[in-house]
Amino acid sequence: MSSMKTLFESEPIVVNLGLKEFAGNLAERGYEVTHVEWKPPAGGDDELVRLLQKLRPLAGQIDEANRTAVERMFAVNPVLTEIARAGDVVPGLDDYTILHAGPPTSWEQMCGPLKGAVLGAILFEGWAATLEEAENLAFSGKIRFDSCHHHSAVGPMTGVLPPSMPVFVVKDRASGGVAFASLNEGLGKVLRFGANGVEVLERLAFMRDELMPFLDTLVRMAGGIDVKPIVSQALQMGDECHNRNKASSALLLKELVPHVPRVDMPVEAVERCLSFVSSNEHFFLNLSMAAAKVTMDAARDVDFSTLVTAMTRNGTDFGISVSGLGNCWFTARAKDVDGLFFPGYGPEDANPDMGDSTITETSGIGGFAMAGAIPIVKFVGGTSEDALRFTRSMYGITVAENSAYGLPALNFRGTPTGIDIRKVIALDELPVLNTGIAHKEAGIGQIGAGVARAPHECFVKALRAFVNEYVSEGE
Amino acid sequence: MSSMKTLFESEPIVVNLGLKEFAGNLAERGYEVTHVEWKPPAGGDDELVRLLQKLRPLAGQIDEANRTAVERMFAVNPVLTEIARAGDVVPGLDDYTILHAGPPTSWEQMCGPLKGAVLGAILFEGWAATLEEAENLAFSGKIRFDSCHHHSAVGPMTGVLPPSMPVFVVKDRASGGVAFASLNEGLGKVLRFGANGVEVLERLAFMRDELMPFLDTLVRMAGGIDVKPIVSQALQMGDECHNRNKASSALLLKELVPHVPRVDMPVEAVERCLSFVSSNEHFFLNLSMAAAKVTMDAARDVDFSTLVTAMTRNGTDFGISVSGLGNCWFTARAKDVDGLFFPGYGPEDANPDMGDSTITETSGIGGFAMAGAIPIVKFVGGTSEDALRFTRSMYGITVAENSAYGLPALNFRGTPTGIDIRKVIALDELPVLNTGIAHKEAGIGQIGAGVARAPHECFVKALRAFVNEYVSEGE
Repeated sequence: MSSMKTLFESEPIVVNLGLKEFAGNLAERGYEVTHVEWKPPAGGDDELVRLLQKLRPLAGQIDEANRTAVERMFAVNPVLTEIARAGDVVPGLDDYTILHAGPPTSWEQMCGPLKGAVLGAILFEGWAATLEEAENLAFSGKIRFDSCHHHSAVGPMTGVLPPSMPVFVVKDRASGGVAFASLNEGLGKVLRFGANGVEVLERLAFMRDELMPFLDTLVRMAGGIDVKPIVSQALQMGDECHNRNKASSALLLKELVPHVPRVDMPVEAVERCLSFVSSNEHFFLNLSMAAAKVTMDAARDVDFSTLVTAMTRNGTDFGISVSGLGNCWFTARAKDVDGLFFPGYGPEDANPDMGDSTITETSGIGGFAMAGAIPIVKFVGGTSEDALRFTRSMYGITVAENSAYGLPALNFRGTPTGIDIRKVIALDELPVLNTGIAHKEAGIGQIGAGVARAPHECFVKALRAFVNEYVSEGE
Repeated sequence: MSSMKTLFESEPIVVNLGLKEFAGNLAERGYEVTHVEWKPPAGGDDELVRLLQKLRPLAGQIDEANRTAVERMFAVNPVLTEIARAGDVVPGLDDYTILHAGPPTSWEQMCGPLKGAVLGAILFEGWAATLEEAENLAFSGKIRFDSCHHHSAVGPMTGVLPPSMPVFVVKDRASGGVAFASLNEGLGKVLRFGANGVEVLERLAFMRDELMPFLDTLVRMAGGIDVKPIVSQALQMGDECHNRNKASSALLLKELVPHVPRVDMPVEAVERCLSFVSSNEHFFLNLSMAAAKVTMDAARDVDFSTLVTAMTRNGTDFGISVSGLGNCWFTARAKDVDGLFFPGYGPEDANPDMGDSTITETSGIGGFAMAGAIPIVKFVGGTSEDALRFTRSMYGITVAENSAYGLPALNFRGTPTGIDIRKVIALDELPVLNTGIAHKEAGIGQIGAGVARAPHECFVKALRAFVNEYVSEGE
């Protein structure tokens, strides 16, 4: 039917690949244009294309390993069993040890809020009496700093965890694995954003002296709290269990409440505890993180797996770990967050992206489940369509869909789960992370919330290391 | 540019109005077809077209009256102030009076579940000792039956309300108006579905003796509970506050919980109350209904207004009232519900549509807010797209959008609010109602849930009455 002759006789019908602008220009001129989304593989980077090609012969093995890793994730059944003093349950969290979010760092390299939180933790522990003494101690080398992640723990923002803080203890009923997370302090001036004044220390003392025994008693009386059903319900109730935890926090409270009358504590203390928990719409966040941590730890150390097992930031660096590559961190400078700022603050005040809370995205919720949490766009910016788009775009870089976490707005499609570093590089699509924004100076606290992307460089480094590890020298 | 000649030279481009099938047939044959949704006005009914035409000259006055009515609705600020014995607060609810859902009816005309609930209420009040005695009493004419709606009250399903039952008391802070609703008994065998056995009566006694003083104390200590903010949040958390009340019930509990330690009741009683409320995912429903009732009563008696102020069913008849038409009921036979049945039951077991709970749809939530409650399709059938479609279709028959109730899935568009009988008739689009399905026999209880439509005939009768009332004889 068609020939060169008819081609030039009729109006052109244009198929446009890649840059949308060309399609727009032609459409404006009245031509019929079909636009096809397309990006060159691996952003057109020759080295990355070569690295991906080197993995081609291993594709079967890698896919199989990733299936194994993600099946282990899905098998995890996390249950909150107790609330305990961190030093009593977190392995290696001894006196004069302070854990922090993100990949390992040193006092000298720490960002402002992290330093502020470390000083607060030293005061809270009574290892120093003044901020000056605390700073001298931090500088002296007597304090051992380490990543929460190295101790089965996670913490939001600075993630600072000294031994006397209470932690959620989350056990995997299936494997017996365990993970820990600090308890959420609420909003305003809080240690996790680097504040360390009297009100911060008093709140931490209340959490240690009253909230810890109160919650521990309730959780034990409830016979433990299954976390997965709460997350599953909350994803249908506007939460993504990272930046929005309103439904999950209310559902958790609902599970605990029937046991309140049996708590043997003074009425005033019970009142303080109930008010604290019921007024904190992010109370579930840290529990969500501990559950995500125990889930991702189950997926570690699967040979040939390109699955990301952690994404985390210390406020200076962003690090990822990969199942087939053991305990290595692949790091890059943490990026800025694109979001909405509280009145009086702007991007120039913001610390770069920070905290262990991206363990939620690593496990397939948080930013990956934005389609379940459309109301969040009021908090981080954007439209309801953006929320759906964020989730949809993550299906491309993940290896499975979590049928336990169905998203109503996507007709109950499961959340995109299990990030494959090959897919991230090949599609040049970086993981979407929901996050709070901290002021870059210690002591000021949260100044906004938004969406960030994991740095490309982390995935490049991981891919290089993976090729190094698994592709024999001959090729 | 175009002429008859060119018309026949090129391929036809078809615009199809109305029946979609024609467009499909042409499209299958390869023609370019644009389908336009279209129905003849008023379903093509000549009488209805004439009635609507008679109202044309009054359009300005009617639109203005409807604006007034809907503004009164939006101004209502409903607050739960106390939980009290119905006979002590509901006007005219004296001994030997029993209120019921829907338009007025008599013992002889009552459907099976309503009769069952009436007998249960008589036993609960101690007016009879056996079911047989109760039936004789009901039949004797000694009991005065009346619609809840005639006493500022509403009740779900049978809506049976005798004097000793506890009720939510909801006051409008703005106007001082007040409305009442019974407390939700939970699922299974319950009075509102016509069950009247020992477990039903024991539960009602617990609700009267323990739950009423417990909740009343909490509500008073909380200084009252504002209902609108809970509805507003819950619509962003998967509830439509009629058939799904999971988030709203949890949010209500969260408001009450901090006051629990100060309740001066035996520990066992407090435990029973907390367990009862925390395990009932529909506990908020009756409060939602009372708030909707006080809202709609504010919109009553606006001259020239075609706004629907109540839609309700007694299990036999469906009735609506209209703002400009006083206290008249415009009734028709209640319809069947299209929904999902619990295992072992089917449409042949179902009682027709029943209850006052459609006051929620009348006020712009419930089925009208389905787009805020996509998870509900798992309960009533359909897909997530259906949920959006139900809400979208209701914008056509309503006069306003409630900006206080933004729907995330529709990019925070306000719920369609204020049903205009003219629009219902003109578009031939009937209000969407979410509802439970009761077994047609007394005592069996809920057998499913689904979606119903208000009967067309109610709106036809109301339109006739409106024309009669407001259009002068000359025309």
